Amino acid sequence: MSDTAHKILEENVGNIVLIKTREGVALRGKLKSFDQHLNIVLDDTEEIRSDGTVRKLGLVVIRGDNVILISPITE
Amino acid sequence: MSDTAHKILEENVGNIVLIKTREGVALRGKLKSFDQHLNIVLDDTEEIRSDGTVRKLGLVVIRGDNVILISPITE
Amino acid sequence: MSDTAHKILEENVGNIVLIKTREGVALRGKLKSFDQHLNIVLDDTEEIRSDGTVRKLGLVVIRGDNVILISPITE
Amino acid sequence: MSDTAHKILEENVGNIVLIKTREGVALRGKLKSFDQHLNIVLDDTEEIRSDGTVRKLGLVVIRGDNVILISPITE
Amino acid sequence: MSDTAHKILEENVGNIVLIKTREGVALRGKLKSFDQHLNIVLDDTEEIRSDGTVRKLGLVVIRGDNVILISPITE
Amino acid sequence: MSDTAHKILEENVGNIVLIKTREGVALRGKLKSFDQHLNIVLDDTEEIRSDGTVRKLGLVVIRGDNVILISPITE
Amino acid sequence: MSDTAHKILEENVGNIVLIKTREGVALRGKLKSFDQHLNIVLDDTEEIRSDGTVRKLGLVVIRGDNVILISPITE
Repeated sequence: MSDTAHKILEENVGNIVLIKTREGVALRGKLKSFDQHLNIVLDDTEEIRSDGTVRKLGLVVIRGDNVILISPITE
Repeated sequence: MSDTAHKILEENVGNIVLIKTREGVALRGKLKSFDQHLNIVLDDTEEIRSDGTVRKLGLVVIRGDNVILISPITE
Repeated sequence: MSDTAHKILEENVGNIVLIKTREGVALRGKLKSFDQHLNIVLDDTEEIRSDGTVRKLGLVVIRGDNVILISPITE
Repeated sequence: MSDTAHKILEENVGNIVLIKTREGVALRGKLKSFDQHLNIVLDDTEEIRSDGTVRKLGLVVIRGDNVILISPITE
Repeated sequence: MSDTAHKILEENVGNIVLIKTREGVALRGKLKSFDQHLNIVLDDTEEIRSDGTVRKLGLVVIRGDNVILISPITE
Repeated sequence: MSDTAHKILEENVGNIVLIKTREGVALRGKLKSFDQHLNIVLDDTEEIRSDGTVRKLGLVVIRGDNVILISPITE
Repeated sequence: MSDTAHKILEENVGNIVLIKTREGVALRGKLKSFDQHLNIVLDDTEEIRSDGTVRKLGLVVIRGDNVILISPITE
């Protein structure tokens, strides 16, 4: 992870992020922690299905290997 | 695995978790054990099919490589 | 593999297990051996197709890399 | 990464690039940073869906493992 | 590979085996050689297509990484 | 990479090559550079879609991991 | 690669081989070179599409990681 990537994630701990993983899973939740392999912990997570409906998941541990992207949500 | 991820899993040994793996497999069961590669053992496991029906699997050993996410179920 | 995972597999040598692999292959057979990479040998194996029909395969060597889960069948 | 690849990315920090990843995700954004594993940070990012519609994502951290290609957009 | 897996393959050199790989390829042929990565050489090989038709391939070298399972055919 | 592969790529720097990657991406462009992991830089690149239409991409950095094949185009 | 696999490939340099890779690509061409990772160079290569039609590719460098099988064609 570049310093910039690390800094962005660090600055967004506690903020809402969007995560896309392999198998087409999309998650939106509060970034609780991350490590250098992009293993992620989200809280208050919602899974966003391909049809746009959401499902509450709460606390989620995500394996970094399968992460495609992480994007802080700013509104 | 970050310390936070480890702590969450540790705190949820004995609790019900949802696991999603590659190939679109979704499992719900009691977290019995895990290691740093996210190899997981679940007990009283149910496989949740894409059509929402479930199938009892009981004890299940899951290969960490193929895990996408783990989420404690709290109701 | 956690000690728990190892113990479960060890206790189930000689018992019937269900294995799911990548490419959607599902196998049911008698666990003959395993190693720490989840390379598995099954005996009296049946492949369970997605339509529920089965096909006898007998002895099967399964590459651990492609294993998603292993579940002892207890009835 | 060859020296040429490194030089191209370095010269395009601050410019708009197109990125394609596994799972068919296409992103267009301003290249903020990259490392030797092709982990990328984009800013002002848009996801380009297969039907051509776009969706604003803003800041995005992309895991290099899943990157297929990066292309500076010059118009 | 466990000792059991190795022994099974060794005992079946010269016998007909079924091999399934990623991308849904199924092959049936005489096991000529294997190594610890499950790289395999088959002779008199037939590819079995999903519609059940077969196609003669003769000698085939198979990359172990992509192997899902190997099963001796005993009739 | 074998010496032959290396020599072919070296001899074709500046020439047009076809590249196929995972996710079914096909690219045609001028080979600018490559390294031993098959990380590739193309210039004047066109993406060739499955329906045969093309789209100009210009300069492209391709991650070697996801490359399936490289073929110099000689007409 | 086992000695047998290596010997077969070595004996077939200059002969026509069939190669199948991930993403369902099938190629037929003259084996020019290979290395221990199954990186392959083919000459006079044709891509065989799923509908049976062929397309001339000429010289092709194939990344070993994505190779499923190699089969000398003997007629």
